[in-house]
Amino acid sequence: MAAELLDVVIVGSGPAGLTAAIYCARSGLKVQVIGKTLGGQAAEASTIENYPGFKHITGIELMERFREHVESLGINILNDEVVGIEEFGGVFLVKTSWSGHFKCRALILAIGAEPKKLGIKGEEEFRGKGVSYCAVCDGPLFRGRNVAVIGGGNSALDAAVYLSALAKTVYLVHRRGELRAAQSLIERLNSRNNVVKKLNKVPIEIGGERFVEWIKLKDASSGAEELLNVNAVFVEAGREVRGNFLKGFVALDDKGQIVVDALCRTSREGVFAAGDATITPYKQVIIAAGDGAKAALSAYEYLKGRGP
Amino acid sequence: MAAELLDVVIVGSGPAGLTAAIYCARSGLKVQVIGKTLGGQAAEASTIENYPGFKHITGIELMERFREHVESLGINILNDEVVGIEEFGGVFLVKTSWSGHFKCRALILAIGAEPKKLGIKGEEEFRGKGVSYCAVCDGPLFRGRNVAVIGGGNSALDAAVYLSALAKTVYLVHRRGELRAAQSLIERLNSRNNVVKKLNKVPIEIGGERFVEWIKLKDASSGAEELLNVNAVFVEAGREVRGNFLKGFVALDDKGQIVVDALCRTSREGVFAAGDATITPYKQVIIAAGDGAKAALSAYEYLKGRGP
Repeated sequence: MAAELLDVVIVGSGPAGLTAAIYCARSGLKVQVIGKTLGGQAAEASTIENYPGFKHITGIELMERFREHVESLGINILNDEVVGIEEFGGVFLVKTSWSGHFKCRALILAIGAEPKKLGIKGEEEFRGKGVSYCAVCDGPLFRGRNVAVIGGGNSALDAAVYLSALAKTVYLVHRRGELRAAQSLIERLNSRNNVVKKLNKVPIEIGGERFVEWIKLKDASSGAEELLNVNAVFVEAGREVRGNFLKGFVALDDKGQIVVDALCRTSREGVFAAGDATITPYKQVIIAAGDGAKAALSAYEYLKGRGP
Repeated sequence: MAAELLDVVIVGSGPAGLTAAIYCARSGLKVQVIGKTLGGQAAEASTIENYPGFKHITGIELMERFREHVESLGINILNDEVVGIEEFGGVFLVKTSWSGHFKCRALILAIGAEPKKLGIKGEEEFRGKGVSYCAVCDGPLFRGRNVAVIGGGNSALDAAVYLSALAKTVYLVHRRGELRAAQSLIERLNSRNNVVKKLNKVPIEIGGERFVEWIKLKDASSGAEELLNVNAVFVEAGREVRGNFLKGFVALDDKGQIVVDALCRTSREGVFAAGDATITPYKQVIIAAGDGAKAALSAYEYLKGRGP
């Protein structure tokens, strides 16, 4: 239990939360960062080539640099999960799973987004037995084997390209007729000769004995089924915000994303948000970082009792 | 004269423009960057300590890394000034001072902002003879001398702290009774014993023989005048957008800043903007970079003929 009244609690320790922490610290605010996963989803990126200043860097390395930057300013990053938030007349009570509660005058929500499930037969049963949501984490286990990547966006293509250097054959399975990813990624994918595109195919079941041995696909037009022999299924079907504790606290859109204005203010006074958890459609490290800075400066202005 | 129809012309080569260029290139767009000053105002910062990933870096070094990042993607940065823009049914004609014109289907305005003048007697006459708008550029010329910094915001304090390591005495002259800067900067300023704060003082004249010898101040309350013997006057009185060529083309606010929404779209379809030139109140490298990425992705979505 922390009785001290803080200026700001930052929920989340990915690019948005860590940048907000840097800006809060430099503005002289008393701040606590609480996060489940250091670096958030960014830490799982194999290579980041679009954070200006670093032509190539792994997600883990970049997030490690963010962490050092934050800690060099004397900020503590608490590894815990926020499970509830309440407001009592301008003071926010932030409840965690393990570390009791924190009190603060302003809040920055940077809770990110997590991988979406397919919701098909075998997905839960074979989780950790061939079903994975992180190609970088688990890809090396399937060196020389056949694998499937499910999805057609940037993260799916990023995973497929990464896996093509390890696996024998990579099947890229997408329910639509065309990929929706950056042109440079599509070109890189097309340059790999062990990637087989399975377009217009819907995954319907994952199966095997103890470990994944196959995935069943259904053609989106004809309905014809086919079985791919694979040892792993990497699910890259988008992300979702795990923000149940925010329902009724701040306005969310129909996808559960936090509604913010251009200055990262939410529907509730004193509460700010940035990064993948917000309605901003582009999920990028540099954008999360920029908006994390905006959220912190908006919180600073709010605490000084005047608008930006 | 360039007859080729480009996808995007980016006007400006500071953090916003260069990040937009990285994102345009990675999206497979044909892009030309046109800028007057590589790195913009950021290149003039003595130390940047709030760009996540770099605990300390000079503005020039960081902008050099941005430039290398852009050029590694095969993008050419043209050193020229844009003097006019016209639209002909969805095609933009961008006129430059020296390199003829460019045609493109979308535009990103990242023209930044430039130092504001004081507009007092002697300021023009002694420009380059002691009157400077860049402490980092000209500070080393006044080693061991007395200097004045005019302003009370982050850039003024940054300049005063920087100069305090070089000059004999630094007078910080501000027309208001309190400084409006980051707490960490105020603390750092207060730790220097050769900085003399002159609050509630309005500069009214700069004078000398061939070079600056004094600045005359007037007390904001009593009207009493005083003369400071200084060899240099560093003006840090805020910034202004040099966007005369944008009047009537896109909506500007009363300060001449480009009106944008949360996705960096201006009032004109196909025209996007990011960085210090926009209405976003926080002028920071990381924010300009994040919004540069947003502007590029919004331009990409526009060109694909669908909303973000």
